[in-house]
Amino acid sequence: MSDLKNDLLLRVLRGEKTERTPVWMMRQAGRYLPEYMKLREKYGFFERVQTPALACEITIQPVDIIGVDAAILFSDILVVPQAMGLEVQLIESKGPILPAPIKTANDLKRVRVPDVNETLHYVFDAIKLIKQELNGRVPLIGFAGAPWTILCYMVQGKGSKTFDEAKEFCYTQPELAHQLLQMITDTTIAYLKGQAEAGADTIQIFDSWGGLLSPQDFEIISLQYIRQIVDALKDIVPTIIFAKGAWHSLDSMAATGAHGLGIDWCIKPQMARQLAGSNIVLQGNFDPAKLLSPIPVIQKEVKEMMDAFEGNHHVANLGHGILPNVPVEHAKAFVDTVKEYQV
Amino acid sequence: MSDLKNDLLLRVLRGEKTERTPVWMMRQAGRYLPEYMKLREKYGFFERVQTPALACEITIQPVDIIGVDAAILFSDILVVPQAMGLEVQLIESKGPILPAPIKTANDLKRVRVPDVNETLHYVFDAIKLIKQELNGRVPLIGFAGAPWTILCYMVQGKGSKTFDEAKEFCYTQPELAHQLLQMITDTTIAYLKGQAEAGADTIQIFDSWGGLLSPQDFEIISLQYIRQIVDALKDIVPTIIFAKGAWHSLDSMAATGAHGLGIDWCIKPQMARQLAGSNIVLQGNFDPAKLLSPIPVIQKEVKEMMDAFEGNHHVANLGHGILPNVPVEHAKAFVDTVKEYQV
Repeated sequence: MSDLKNDLLLRVLRGEKTERTPVWMMRQAGRYLPEYMKLREKYGFFERVQTPALACEITIQPVDIIGVDAAILFSDILVVPQAMGLEVQLIESKGPILPAPIKTANDLKRVRVPDVNETLHYVFDAIKLIKQELNGRVPLIGFAGAPWTILCYMVQGKGSKTFDEAKEFCYTQPELAHQLLQMITDTTIAYLKGQAEAGADTIQIFDSWGGLLSPQDFEIISLQYIRQIVDALKDIVPTIIFAKGAWHSLDSMAATGAHGLGIDWCIKPQMARQLAGSNIVLQGNFDPAKLLSPIPVIQKEVKEMMDAFEGNHHVANLGHGILPNVPVEHAKAFVDTVKEYQV
Repeated sequence: MSDLKNDLLLRVLRGEKTERTPVWMMRQAGRYLPEYMKLREKYGFFERVQTPALACEITIQPVDIIGVDAAILFSDILVVPQAMGLEVQLIESKGPILPAPIKTANDLKRVRVPDVNETLHYVFDAIKLIKQELNGRVPLIGFAGAPWTILCYMVQGKGSKTFDEAKEFCYTQPELAHQLLQMITDTTIAYLKGQAEAGADTIQIFDSWGGLLSPQDFEIISLQYIRQIVDALKDIVPTIIFAKGAWHSLDSMAATGAHGLGIDWCIKPQMARQLAGSNIVLQGNFDPAKLLSPIPVIQKEVKEMMDAFEGNHHVANLGHGILPNVPVEHAKAFVDTVKEYQV
């Protein structure tokens, strides 16, 4: 870690008190940045993801433009089902489509646990290049989707408000579902170890659809697999779990040994702290839509958020991804207000 | 109330201990019923809603077929923005479209607080007919959307995962937003009083999008208006608030004086009871997607839910609307298991 000029994020994740709270934003490399939009016009989604030079450029844009304390790899959680043998189409502004989703035991035969060095090497190449280009300015965050969230897409075949087909698959064919979840887990562990070896300084697990499950099902269908991933990674790099909406399981997520937990904006920081316990890092939790407010409102509400977290094992972030229609200066106001905040 | 043969729901809402727990299902009059689908093929959505004989037939179907302990008026929350002067299109399987949504002060001039007896008389006529046809078998639940949820559609103009345009409207033009919220509130109070006068035995307020707001914003943008509605209604009929995902405000919702609170399946009954306090009725909270499970699984999990609520100020229900692809016998298994449950 000594080669990093700004290692605030890593020190907080390791449990240290720091001179100020680190800040980054989910989806910080994305559509609200004109510089990103230029590349988006020229290159298709998977071209951007699979070309290390493009992924590198996009990853570093928010470090240069917004001044965040960490870079997060530009990629997509759906590279994992793709590597496992499913076709994934990413049509801009329409969301992902998997034309041949998994519904039966027979469908499952089309899925494999791949050699990640063969199928996902472009991610590792991108990470190496990013680390070189970052040259120690800030840490690099790697990531993957949680197995349940990946299953959602592999079974439903597209985005959904309820992912009821994915839930039906788990409820009516539990053996098949657990077989698939274990295959995703095994792939994800190899994939994230590869990211860490390539140079990722910390890893975030995104369970975007964890909040669709009841507390009981979250344990059975999601958390037991996240736990395996954290177990496999936690002695290599710090890990952060972000299970959107799964506030009810903050205690059991904290007990996995993860270093940090992401929380969305629909829980008060004090309540999250009470549920998660006093030692774990909490990451969040500004309402992404609030970045559409006038700058003075953003500044005021960011300060209120910082007050509520008391600079105590906290990484400032949004409670979900930044919206494409947020003005760049509003994103910058968010980051600047955190950086200027005095406990 | 003495004219009702089955007044279980009303007695529970009034705080009484009953011989068993009453049960009904959100969206129980709907697409999972073949009898409903036949009417849906013949008549357009607003034709079904605006024709008292059709609304009556659809409302009573689940009482006859599934054996629930209450009927809920067949209608739609978007009749309110329609009555207030906005065009609402309901295209089957595509969701609602409001072609001319509210974005500016000028747009707001198109909106009025209507005379509900002129604009929504068909609902009152339907309620009178339903009461007559039910002939005291079970109580009738009336309903309306919460003002924030109605604003979501009036501003966004269509369904959305995030309703970011509705939130942007509230954050950037708060005076306008509160003006609109008050107009919706005034309309809704008159509308629900009309429903009660026509014969609705209890009223549910649906805040389907309450869970998109932070706890602070939920109070400012949603709950202060729901509170006005509960205040205006609570001495006339029992009221139930269902703010999906807004578990964080169960205490302040309980403090409104509402008789019952709906809860979704993403909170354990014990936790909901702890947050809401010991006296208020809790309604829920079976995962709607769980009705896709095999019947023995449904029976087992319904019993677990009933155990968790301990027959204590509880109305059994789903945690959200029933899904269209649920087999009728599964819906019936849910209802029967509640009815046969012995504390």
